[in-house]
Amino acid sequence: MRVASGGSVLPEDLRSRVLERIRPTRLQFSMLGRLYSLVARALEECEDLRLSIPAYRVELVGSAAKGTLLRDKWEVDVFLLLEARREEVRRLGESLLRSCLEGRLPYYFKYSEHPYATVSLMGMQADVVPAPLAVDPRDAVGVERTPFHTRYVRSRLEEKPWLVDDILLFKSFLKGIGVYGAETRVGGFSGYLAEVLIIHYGGFEETVKAASSWRPPVMVDTTGGKADLDMLARRYPDSPIIVPDPVDPSRNTAASVTPKRLAELVHAANIFLRKPSPTFFHALQPGEPCRRTLPGVMVLMSGNYSDHPPDSVWGRLKRLGERLYRATKARGYPALSYSFYTDEALEAAVYIHMESPSRYPIEGRLGPPTWDRERATRFTEKRLGEGGWVWIGDDGRLSGARPYTGSAAGDVERALATLPLPPGTRSYKVVTCPSTGPCGFPSYLEALRDPTPPWLRHVLGGCRS
Amino acid sequence: MRVASGGSVLPEDLRSRVLERIRPTRLQFSMLGRLYSLVARALEECEDLRLSIPAYRVELVGSAAKGTLLRDKWEVDVFLLLEARREEVRRLGESLLRSCLEGRLPYYFKYSEHPYATVSLMGMQADVVPAPLAVDPRDAVGVERTPFHTRYVRSRLEEKPWLVDDILLFKSFLKGIGVYGAETRVGGFSGYLAEVLIIHYGGFEETVKAASSWRPPVMVDTTGGKADLDMLARRYPDSPIIVPDPVDPSRNTAASVTPKRLAELVHAANIFLRKPSPTFFHALQPGEPCRRTLPGVMVLMSGNYSDHPPDSVWGRLKRLGERLYRATKARGYPALSYSFYTDEALEAAVYIHMESPSRYPIEGRLGPPTWDRERATRFTEKRLGEGGWVWIGDDGRLSGARPYTGSAAGDVERALATLPLPPGTRSYKVVTCPSTGPCGFPSYLEALRDPTPPWLRHVLGGCRS
Repeated sequence: MRVASGGSVLPEDLRSRVLERIRPTRLQFSMLGRLYSLVARALEECEDLRLSIPAYRVELVGSAAKGTLLRDKWEVDVFLLLEARREEVRRLGESLLRSCLEGRLPYYFKYSEHPYATVSLMGMQADVVPAPLAVDPRDAVGVERTPFHTRYVRSRLEEKPWLVDDILLFKSFLKGIGVYGAETRVGGFSGYLAEVLIIHYGGFEETVKAASSWRPPVMVDTTGGKADLDMLARRYPDSPIIVPDPVDPSRNTAASVTPKRLAELVHAANIFLRKPSPTFFHALQPGEPCRRTLPGVMVLMSGNYSDHPPDSVWGRLKRLGERLYRATKARGYPALSYSFYTDEALEAAVYIHMESPSRYPIEGRLGPPTWDRERATRFTEKRLGEGGWVWIGDDGRLSGARPYTGSAAGDVERALATLPLPPGTRSYKVVTCPSTGPCGFPSYLEALRDPTPPWLRHVLGGCRS
Repeated sequence: MRVASGGSVLPEDLRSRVLERIRPTRLQFSMLGRLYSLVARALEECEDLRLSIPAYRVELVGSAAKGTLLRDKWEVDVFLLLEARREEVRRLGESLLRSCLEGRLPYYFKYSEHPYATVSLMGMQADVVPAPLAVDPRDAVGVERTPFHTRYVRSRLEEKPWLVDDILLFKSFLKGIGVYGAETRVGGFSGYLAEVLIIHYGGFEETVKAASSWRPPVMVDTTGGKADLDMLARRYPDSPIIVPDPVDPSRNTAASVTPKRLAELVHAANIFLRKPSPTFFHALQPGEPCRRTLPGVMVLMSGNYSDHPPDSVWGRLKRLGERLYRATKARGYPALSYSFYTDEALEAAVYIHMESPSRYPIEGRLGPPTWDRERATRFTEKRLGEGGWVWIGDDGRLSGARPYTGSAAGDVERALATLPLPPGTRSYKVVTCPSTGPCGFPSYLEALRDPTPPWLRHVLGGCRS
């Protein structure tokens, strides 16, 4: 059924080799179907629900519903659609879910935009999300859009069922290069966005080719001219890529994508087209990528991170990395970049990559022109008073230098005292890693010390040290 | 006779205390007079001279003739003015001087613009310079101008004899701050320029005050409107200060002054006016200034430098310092400045001052934008191939880093291989000085390691280490 495009760069055997590993299995579908039935029955037979809400419907949404889930994902998304206004759903949702699930299925609550239940059974998970039953897609907010997205993708895949494989390939590719997911931690491409792009471009290879020549700001009109792209550009001025939502063309489905993740996809697309390899796909990467560390400063934090929404912990962590990177650079350290990590439970870490973990022990400074009498004299007195140096260069400019006695760890500690830490942080310590060798951390922390995306090391270069 | 100007900042006791140390003595004048007589007689009674040249005159010129020489200078300048054309003077000068002096006075030859003899007797020196007798001052070139300069200054000092002390003070001040002398090594203020400025401004303090508010390009019209300053500015586009020669207003007497030396005078003038101190004057400075060294790289050269005109050795040495400074900076070393030195005989040295004698062992590099496909891929392959790092920053820019394994000494050696060394250099070695402490050189070389002008350390700060 699938028509091969002219000049294909993706060898057919690579395509099938990857699909063989990422296509969901029949067993997976049947087990996830069983889980869904259990959840649906619990909700449908729920007394409390019947008594409080005039009408409701249980709906399977998300990848499982569309058949686009990856083999290693044993999750279903279940919407409990209530005939009630948004405020009422929000107010009643949690208690209704509790009374319907209590004693029937093992569950716990998660809190993102609004609370939802996760049923966890035999290694599978079902997220159960309450939402209003009757909403116009253009009025929908947040998760309320999910059922519309599911129905849209299902209807398009009914027309072109062969695109399911391409969606799986693209999701696995995005995941393999670390840009899959709209959450703060990633700031990348959501599953729905991946589906919209594949449907728009007509296949995995077509999408990768298109992405390889993207240059921000990128505009992908998936609505066939129905979207007002100028309006979207004004509404999302910081978005490096705008993809109008086919379900609501006034919304940018790619609003979560950061410049970093967009550029990573463009770069990966180019390298993939030049050097197609199974290691671009998440399920085919070696477990332990080879790493080459950079010197720098690690900030290790411990706290109760499970008490806080992961997005808020990751968000603060990223801001902290960014600010420490800038602060150390401003103090003369040769900072290159930063990485961050949290287990979302007890531990969080930021690593500032540097050319060296220390700065030069002497700091050169340009002085004012000598004809600026007061300032030139003050500059000279200050430098000499600090035990430093002053001279006039060939160009007649006054210059100076002074000794610098701080340390990276000390300077980072000082900067940390004025910066907001991730919510829940109880304590922290600062460790300086002097060389490119190991610094004594467990491997998931040592991994932070290499800013190179692992897929890049996999594909181009192998291990070197 | 001297009228004190309003708001004098130079305490009278400082003035007299300095003058007491720098005024030439009666004994000095009588001994230098005796030396001049010996030289003059040798020339006047010279048979060869009488036979080859129709008419000639011996004339005492320079500081000794004007009474403006400093006490520690035991030198006279003697001109042998020949009635002959410039070319003939040049052609015959050396052999005539040889035959006149041979067997009568100890002498040796020096070669600057053209050859001249130096008679050395009892610790005194007489430079004997042949020049044409009849030249219009506006046609005079090089040393031919000296007799006119001498006559001009003498005539002005006959009118205002009290300015002699101010000239002595100013010369000692210029010498004390290291900007005295028009030769390449210094690139500063000649004795004649010092005299012209004192005569123009009317005193030492007036001149220092004027200099303290100079801002390049500086114009000092010493000719009372006779000079065409616009023409001079066009003719000396690189001169940061233009002082028309009263003897030839189309010439800039300050042509030798570099931006560095001008700015040093301005800076010293300001600090002096704020903090007058005897240590600004050359004869009152402590013998061993306190020094604070910088790390860096010393290039030690040995050769036959006495075989070459000092100006040419100093000139090349300065260029070498400048180029090594730039080359090391371009290779990522934190170079701050450079110093140079030669004994004009066997040894020459250049020191590159650095924040550290090594650079960071890793070198960060900004890559091309990811949408510049070819270059972005090549950049990534190159960095990873070098065992380096590649990442995409928050702004979507591709960046990289690579290990750097060179050493400052090695990199300087490599740069030296392509740079012209001072004429006469036979061999060199490169020494890296890692810290601010001593590096094992004799003190005149250790002194190169502090870029701070010694007078600045004397006046502001004392010793710190």
